Amino acid sequence: LPLPTKATHQRTREHNVRLVLRTLYDFGPTSRAEIARRTHLTRTTVSDVISDLAQDGMVEEIGRGVSSGGKAPILLRIVSGARLVIGLDLGEGTFTGALVNLRGEISHQVDLPVEGRDGAGSLEVVEDLVDRLRAEATGPLLGIGVGTPGIIDSGTGTIRWAVNLDWQDLELGRLLAERTGLPVYVANDSQAAALAEYAFGGVGPRIPNLAAIKVGRGVGAGIVLGGRLWQGDGFGAGEIGHVGVVDDGARCRCGRFGCLETVASAEAIVARARALAAEGPRSRRGRGARQQDGLALGDVRAAFAAGDPCATTAVLEGGRHLGAAIAMLAGVLDVHHVVLHGSVTAFGDRWLAAVRDEAARRSMGLVADAMHIDLVGIASNLTVLGASALLMTSELGLELAR
Amino acid sequence: LPLPTKATHQRTREHNVRLVLRTLYDFGPTSRAEIARRTHLTRTTVSDVISDLAQDGMVEEIGRGVSSGGKAPILLRIVSGARLVIGLDLGEGTFTGALVNLRGEISHQVDLPVEGRDGAGSLEVVEDLVDRLRAEATGPLLGIGVGTPGIIDSGTGTIRWAVNLDWQDLELGRLLAERTGLPVYVANDSQAAALAEYAFGGVGPRIPNLAAIKVGRGVGAGIVLGGRLWQGDGFGAGEIGHVGVVDDGARCRCGRFGCLETVASAEAIVARARALAAEGPRSRRGRGARQQDGLALGDVRAAFAAGDPCATTAVLEGGRHLGAAIAMLAGVLDVHHVVLHGSVTAFGDRWLAAVRDEAARRSMGLVADAMHIDLVGIASNLTVLGASALLMTSELGLELAR
Repeated sequence: LPLPTKATHQRTREHNVRLVLRTLYDFGPTSRAEIARRTHLTRTTVSDVISDLAQDGMVEEIGRGVSSGGKAPILLRIVSGARLVIGLDLGEGTFTGALVNLRGEISHQVDLPVEGRDGAGSLEVVEDLVDRLRAEATGPLLGIGVGTPGIIDSGTGTIRWAVNLDWQDLELGRLLAERTGLPVYVANDSQAAALAEYAFGGVGPRIPNLAAIKVGRGVGAGIVLGGRLWQGDGFGAGEIGHVGVVDDGARCRCGRFGCLETVASAEAIVARARALAAEGPRSRRGRGARQQDGLALGDVRAAFAAGDPCATTAVLEGGRHLGAAIAMLAGVLDVHHVVLHGSVTAFGDRWLAAVRDEAARRSMGLVADAMHIDLVGIASNLTVLGASALLMTSELGLELAR
Repeated sequence: LPLPTKATHQRTREHNVRLVLRTLYDFGPTSRAEIARRTHLTRTTVSDVISDLAQDGMVEEIGRGVSSGGKAPILLRIVSGARLVIGLDLGEGTFTGALVNLRGEISHQVDLPVEGRDGAGSLEVVEDLVDRLRAEATGPLLGIGVGTPGIIDSGTGTIRWAVNLDWQDLELGRLLAERTGLPVYVANDSQAAALAEYAFGGVGPRIPNLAAIKVGRGVGAGIVLGGRLWQGDGFGAGEIGHVGVVDDGARCRCGRFGCLETVASAEAIVARARALAAEGPRSRRGRGARQQDGLALGDVRAAFAAGDPCATTAVLEGGRHLGAAIAMLAGVLDVHHVVLHGSVTAFGDRWLAAVRDEAARRSMGLVADAMHIDLVGIASNLTVLGASALLMTSELGLELAR
């Protein structure tokens, strides 16, 4: 059955608007003629679309470019602040939200603690965060992008399972959309971070294929293939933290045993350092065990920096477990670029060397030689940026993600 | 610098021919008007392209279709036998070659043993195979598709490293192209097989995302994502057989230790069954050890079927190691369809149950519930078909692979 003519026109128009926006976004200041050339739209169509976008404040003229013979063309660009996105990172004891412009620049950020809250309490914090950021928005909001740990159905905005937050089948997308009237895009936090690394990371040309692995309380990867976020059949791609890697391993937050998280995460390293210290000579002399109870990541970091043998063993073992998982990931995907982020990366060079060494040791020479494992270069919150990028691409058709 | 006008016209024409062929290939008998509608080419362009293709014998008219008001349209289709492809599978002691038509149907097949030959000797067998098949070809040859174990640079047709064949940096594509004057496409055998499973496997609509794992002498996966073969940054995607999975493991053919191949391949299972039998009570009584020396896969299969405990342990352990690797593969990719092929799959249901159980045990419930691990349904040689499909797609632009 053919679509009614009106709907088809409407759809064609939306398609054209997206094509023009994408061209402006990807190629920077551009003339109408250049847009027509790149999009294969007619000059007239491009001018009509630009005129509407300019009226919406999305596009502005910024003067004349270099002439290629005739009159120098007027250059156009997207107005970075024409729309703002609320980007949220729901993870690791703190929920972070920010206002992000169309160039991925953060103008206002709020952090709220969620430590100790249950599922309902955590949801209240999300709503509070959204309300505060809406109140601060100085321009029209394009929507809300959310990055959160767990298995997320990005198609419906439903959190199918978030181990850390006690959320199961929570329709976060629908709830936030009803509260605000804005479009909402929800994705796994590691997936969002990988897209941010692709879109905003590094210098020079974008790296089309990469894995970005978050190593903090949780462990999870995001995978970008051919410049697009790969989410898998069930949006679970990269959820390597809950793959069993140790036989007879410790109980994981997910309820199973021996997951990668139980040996490579921040808490796993802290627990291992504590256990080693308790087994050690001081403990056998009846002291130290209580002292160690309060060990947190910062303490292990200090002990590791001071050369403490228990901390050193725990940290390097954690790195090696991660390296082994990276070897299999690289065997499956053969992506040459793996970047690491999250609180555990603060252990620095010696931890990174253990990760690299174990990944290389378990990989074919040809694969190991080509593989680069590095700490992420972006200082800002990767998940917030990635969640924002996902919302922008979904709303403006900028083609960074599928 | 703009291209010369002539080259641009030439390129546009090639592009149009590919579009028309792909439409005919994917949608079956189709009219000129329907092709124009699907390709967005003009009626005149489509008619010109069809006229040329008909003259080449590639396309034929097969009568009139159903009228949608006016005169019933003439339907066109690709002539299956208009071009033949030589498909080669260089693996596992035997090299297999076949003539394959444009529909993936095999008309003539030759198997030649290579057991015991060195690199140069194996290459002679390849050339022999190609010469024999060319002599049998009843129609014009489109080219040669080769599937072979190892890391293959499909861009240049170079075998970078084939563990089993003692080939390193062998320019097989160039050698065969010079010998025959035909286009040649060389790919990893497991990758080719995965494409065949996508293109020709199953019934009903194609499964866009899948992993096909070959478990024979070698272990390797091919990965299809979004209907395209994913080869990775260095064409090594799916080379999981040489990822280290066992600490202090046995020496692998690749020179390293504890690779998946050393615990899950046909030879690993045979060796393990032999070792267990040698340790067993009969051996301790001074008999049996010599008997076991000649154990081959067929013997282990018979012993397994007869309920022999050593064979059972060896086979099920092999299955569990494969299952563990699949858990990580699924954690990385979240593809719901995994198919298994190769000689080890002949161990059947109990082996498959061990693979499935271990993969599920090591995966998140949400992932495990959605994952299907099955034996491949195609009886013919998957690698030959896949290699042919890769050549066809590369020469005719049929878009099955990138």
